[in-house]
Amino acid sequence: MKKIKRALISVSDKNNLKFLVNNLNKYKIKFISSGGTFKEIKRLGFHCEEVSKFTNSAEILSGRVKTLHPKIYAGILAKRQSRLHKKDLKRNNYDEIDLVIVNFYPFESVIKKTKNNEKILENIDIGGPTMVRAAAKNYKDVTVITNVSQYESLIKNMNQNKGATSLEFRKQTALEAFEETAFYESLIYNYFSNASPNNFSKKIILGFKRFEKLRYGENPHQKGAIYGKSDNLDLYKLNGKQLSYNNYNDIFAALQISKTFPNNKGTVIVKHGNPCGVSMHENKIESFMLAHKCDPVSAFGGIVSCNFIINKKLALELNKLFFEVIIGNGFDKDALSILKRKKNVRLINSENYKISNRNNFISNTEIALIQNPDIKNFKYSDFKVVSKNKPNKKTFQNLIFAFHVCRFVKSNAIVLTNEKSTIGIGSGQPSRLDSCDVAIKKMNEFHDISNKEILAASDAFFPFVDGIEKLVQSGISGIVQPSGSIRDKEIINFANETGTILLFSNTRHFRH
Amino acid sequence: MKKIKRALISVSDKNNLKFLVNNLNKYKIKFISSGGTFKEIKRLGFHCEEVSKFTNSAEILSGRVKTLHPKIYAGILAKRQSRLHKKDLKRNNYDEIDLVIVNFYPFESVIKKTKNNEKILENIDIGGPTMVRAAAKNYKDVTVITNVSQYESLIKNMNQNKGATSLEFRKQTALEAFEETAFYESLIYNYFSNASPNNFSKKIILGFKRFEKLRYGENPHQKGAIYGKSDNLDLYKLNGKQLSYNNYNDIFAALQISKTFPNNKGTVIVKHGNPCGVSMHENKIESFMLAHKCDPVSAFGGIVSCNFIINKKLALELNKLFFEVIIGNGFDKDALSILKRKKNVRLINSENYKISNRNNFISNTEIALIQNPDIKNFKYSDFKVVSKNKPNKKTFQNLIFAFHVCRFVKSNAIVLTNEKSTIGIGSGQPSRLDSCDVAIKKMNEFHDISNKEILAASDAFFPFVDGIEKLVQSGISGIVQPSGSIRDKEIINFANETGTILLFSNTRHFRH
Repeated sequence: MKKIKRALISVSDKNNLKFLVNNLNKYKIKFISSGGTFKEIKRLGFHCEEVSKFTNSAEILSGRVKTLHPKIYAGILAKRQSRLHKKDLKRNNYDEIDLVIVNFYPFESVIKKTKNNEKILENIDIGGPTMVRAAAKNYKDVTVITNVSQYESLIKNMNQNKGATSLEFRKQTALEAFEETAFYESLIYNYFSNASPNNFSKKIILGFKRFEKLRYGENPHQKGAIYGKSDNLDLYKLNGKQLSYNNYNDIFAALQISKTFPNNKGTVIVKHGNPCGVSMHENKIESFMLAHKCDPVSAFGGIVSCNFIINKKLALELNKLFFEVIIGNGFDKDALSILKRKKNVRLINSENYKISNRNNFISNTEIALIQNPDIKNFKYSDFKVVSKNKPNKKTFQNLIFAFHVCRFVKSNAIVLTNEKSTIGIGSGQPSRLDSCDVAIKKMNEFHDISNKEILAASDAFFPFVDGIEKLVQSGISGIVQPSGSIRDKEIINFANETGTILLFSNTRHFRH
Repeated sequence: MKKIKRALISVSDKNNLKFLVNNLNKYKIKFISSGGTFKEIKRLGFHCEEVSKFTNSAEILSGRVKTLHPKIYAGILAKRQSRLHKKDLKRNNYDEIDLVIVNFYPFESVIKKTKNNEKILENIDIGGPTMVRAAAKNYKDVTVITNVSQYESLIKNMNQNKGATSLEFRKQTALEAFEETAFYESLIYNYFSNASPNNFSKKIILGFKRFEKLRYGENPHQKGAIYGKSDNLDLYKLNGKQLSYNNYNDIFAALQISKTFPNNKGTVIVKHGNPCGVSMHENKIESFMLAHKCDPVSAFGGIVSCNFIINKKLALELNKLFFEVIIGNGFDKDALSILKRKKNVRLINSENYKISNRNNFISNTEIALIQNPDIKNFKYSDFKVVSKNKPNKKTFQNLIFAFHVCRFVKSNAIVLTNEKSTIGIGSGQPSRLDSCDVAIKKMNEFHDISNKEILAASDAFFPFVDGIEKLVQSGISGIVQPSGSIRDKEIINFANETGTILLFSNTRHFRH
């Protein structure tokens, strides 16, 4: 361990600079700097040498080239134990640089603030990352600091080591340095590739920032955390306990559905990643009541997402039941104070949240399966009426609603609806027939379907007539499904024999 | 567009260098280079200036500092439209560098070949990425090439533009340059953080390489691809059509189960991400037969994973049925030729595949939910016998088997077993009671359970007695479940009243 003698400081974030140089100065460390940092150190009353003086090479190209000089890099990269390197330094009259404190041009905040490509390009830092990378590479001899939050531990470590730093400390900050450079580089790469966010390039590089460590993952023996690209999720918790891993998972599942609804309309209840009640009824309170009625047993402890502002009347209804999370596009003042009576219930304002059109992927950090999201919006022309019995406009719209919900249910998925509310959802079965059974059972358990038009949607084609048969026998009068079975014709015949309305969709909607 | 006059070439991959310089030479481009690339260009018979001559600055520190010189960076970074920049170049007698052809020290292959930290650190390239980043930043004036595969398109573009390149081309190669630097940096970062792969650091940076573009994603209107960190998946396809997105998803689900079994034992059948049959029967053929018998309807078109070498006898059995994918830890020669009779069936050799202990995550490239994998192995001490009726060793082991399978079934999960084979699996239900119904229905549909010991496992606690009641009424004599309900005591009482064996586990195993 060697005392630090010379420090190169170049920081765009000038917070706590006074604390830093004041403490470094106690060890009589020489400062080299340039531009704004140089001025600030001088202003604070410390001696500091300008980089251009140190290198005897003027800053050129409006600052594009200032530190890119062999004297700087020899000072950082020389192995202190190597005789050869020592000779090289001596021969060239170069000095060792033991401490590099650098943070980068604020590329991240600039791309948020402007669309001006010139300005953005100018904020791709070349010198900064190079100094940091060189220092981190040579961490056995050099200390690298990339963040204001490290100043205190640097000074503490130096105090413990009489003006030197420990190898352990240097290795840790080198790791943090590469964390910064890798993240910085991922931002630039993703800015360049932004024109086509959903392409499948030869390599993909994803940089995420941690929002929050979670109490645990899906289960208490698994650790978990939530990360994102931006600075926040655009979800605001107004009340309740910390959100859990499973809460987040269900919240995203719920919002993915409710945010596809027309403005200011619709309620979704999610349990274990699957919807267990969905309604787009015109009346907001009714939409909640109907979503809940779909499967009130499963809804217990679930997550509600209302695609509208939650008002007092609804808040009173919600308070009668137990939900882990209640999401709204805002809350009336009265509603908020009513719901807050339950201390633990998590209330989430999602008015700014937008569903992403970015690729989604499942991965274990070793392997990643990546795909476009299933965000197609349906038009009438996406469906073909293949039965003799034709739907009227309302029935057609209701069938599209059923099919739309079906895409969000884990496969095999069967969704039964009345008007624009679900009344039976069959999910997660390895056999389509079983999903029919589950959906029908739910429907019969909680609903009186007499004199109602009951419609069904299936996320993939029926391989045999038996599933359709079962549905029709249970009172379903209209079905929408993708085509593709070699028995499609049999299925159409069966629909015609029973007067059932049958629509074939263009697209399949597996969700595993 | 300006003709390219000067190129800086420094490549560790020297393939096709002759093609490159030969074509560049036609446009009378001056070459600058160093080290091995310099020698190779000279050897090929072309004129080339050494970097140290160009900069008038010797290569020092055993090559650690050679290109880090203002003359190089001014040449790359100068804006050709800027009078000020032009003046700076002229005043310093610097020359424009219009083309940068660089690839990096082979960090990736070095970390695969050696554990020697010194050697690995030496292969962190500082100069290379800096030149590439500078050139990519200045893509409006400079062309950057980072890969041999780009040589042909470079020459083609220059031929189309009379020795210049198009802006479009330069922008595209700048994007590819940042793809390289970001990926390179992610490798270094992950090498440094490797000691704790499952920590949840402030930032995470993931770099993946594309293995394969897939025909589509989960559905035909979604595009998909598979990526990984290493060069291959350690899965070898020996026969059949291209693997699909859903195939991969199911293959990973199947291997995650079968690879947890004791060596050379056990069969799993997966459909839509859920197991629909699992057996660890000692006899290999029997293990397949029993896994299949669990739910032969759902198994149709599923994925079989045998945790052993598939032999002729099993191949004949497998050929009687329809599976999309058959996975084995290798195939006998005879077995292979029998199975290959079906041209489309995908045969996968998984003998080298290992399940990952890395964090898994779900993400949409904007948000990432990350957690440790659920890889805990069970010991007897992880379970507490809470009923008066105590299990014998065999029953205890069979209960652990049931619970082990249960963790891989999507929640809510109920698994019914006889010996070490499943006979009923209830999955993906928002209510635990429904999962009981589904599992019991499956059991009764395909099995005669008279005189058999039937056991049940639940991935989470039963909130009420009703689920347990249902199971016991259906013939189940032993149950394993996590504890945690306020009604645990009622459940224990019920078990004691009915003589049921009841085990509480330490851990819950949601899988959503």
